[in-house]
Amino acid sequence: MCGTCGCDARDAVHRHQAPPKALRFELDLLAKNDRLAAENRHWFETSGIVALILIGAPGAGKTALLEETARRVGREIPIAVLEGDQATDRDAERVRAAGCPVVQINTDAGCHLDASMIAEAMPRLGPGRGSLLFVENVGNLVCPALFDLGERAKIVVMSVTEGEDKPLKYPHVFRASEVLVLTKVDLLPHLDFEVERCLENVQRVNPRLRVFPLSSTKGDGFEDWCDWLRAETEDAGPLA
Amino acid sequence: MCGTCGCDARDAVHRHQAPPKALRFELDLLAKNDRLAAENRHWFETSGIVALILIGAPGAGKTALLEETARRVGREIPIAVLEGDQATDRDAERVRAAGCPVVQINTDAGCHLDASMIAEAMPRLGPGRGSLLFVENVGNLVCPALFDLGERAKIVVMSVTEGEDKPLKYPHVFRASEVLVLTKVDLLPHLDFEVERCLENVQRVNPRLRVFPLSSTKGDGFEDWCDWLRAETEDAGPLA
Repeated sequence: MCGTCGCDARDAVHRHQAPPKALRFELDLLAKNDRLAAENRHWFETSGIVALILIGAPGAGKTALLEETARRVGREIPIAVLEGDQATDRDAERVRAAGCPVVQINTDAGCHLDASMIAEAMPRLGPGRGSLLFVENVGNLVCPALFDLGERAKIVVMSVTEGEDKPLKYPHVFRASEVLVLTKVDLLPHLDFEVERCLENVQRVNPRLRVFPLSSTKGDGFEDWCDWLRAETEDAGPLA
Repeated sequence: MCGTCGCDARDAVHRHQAPPKALRFELDLLAKNDRLAAENRHWFETSGIVALILIGAPGAGKTALLEETARRVGREIPIAVLEGDQATDRDAERVRAAGCPVVQINTDAGCHLDASMIAEAMPRLGPGRGSLLFVENVGNLVCPALFDLGERAKIVVMSVTEGEDKPLKYPHVFRASEVLVLTKVDLLPHLDFEVERCLENVQRVNPRLRVFPLSSTKGDGFEDWCDWLRAETEDAGPLA
């Protein structure tokens, strides 16, 4: 067991700290991002907008989750979406077709969205009071975990095709999130994946993580996720 | 169509350049990495070692590919493995059980391996002349594409569960690689994934990319990949 990061590596070469110059620079960048994120958060709260970030690997099913969420909840709660991708506006097109206003942010070589990109896109997206704002980050289970965008909660999206051990191997994002959406459960009969073993791994990394196993294409478990979203927007207080 | 990065976004907010300070710092970091990578490359070439990097999203099947490769090719060609992960030495244990010497590198919050980590780990791994060295990067389809580690080739590993559009959405890694291993083809009957459409997308991004569709668990297509590895090690010239 490594005493610094808490992982169970024994003979590993560890890299807990960047060199001083890189570390200083990284801290500056994070501090600047945190200031902007605090401004975003204040704006979301005073505007009655519930902002949720989706973080997951490429192909985890983030966009399919948004499409089905829009179909089921979109008539009760206005949903607006910020789409982050290295390239193309394919996800934005899919979400728009599901009935949501959307702005696409292309990061090119960039690996995550930051708070300034959110602030810049808001006037163009213009979510109304009482809206649910989903920010779909660049498909990446690593870097987006480190950046506060001013959101109410981070939601980690992981597919059952990725394997039971991902919470242990990518602990930062599972610790930074309040919810895990475990997607593609309709594929379980064809995989060597035990949901219980995955949940034990989640428990070791973040016992407070709320988990919604579901299938966006077949609908299994989807209503529990929708009910949680309904409760979150009610919790936001009087929005009228 | 965006004129800068060539993606087909129309109304996207683009981020093609980091701010000047960040850009300068990034260029310094990349230049330093490139110098070390050149030293690694020289060392690999003079030591008769063929170094290949596996890059793919979490759960793409990189470790399963290594396990099956070790079982099929390990008796003909000595295989050594460097495993990169944020935390745990689970992948190292799996690869060791398949008969390969292995060193695990844990990056903690870090999102990729760099050339200095490879140089540092080599004396501990000690691959012999004529070895095939696999470097399994941190599960991330984004950042590892930017870093030269001194390898002979980058290999992008993508699972059919991730969707046909990934080459378009993450073009950098598909352009930086020479080979695409398209994993988990045994799941195709249960997915809405057309291999032909995926290959068209590959063609648009990198027409020279060699593609091996295969299943590491069922064995479909696996021998073509093994034959390519055999040819690569023969191409390395006289290794005795």
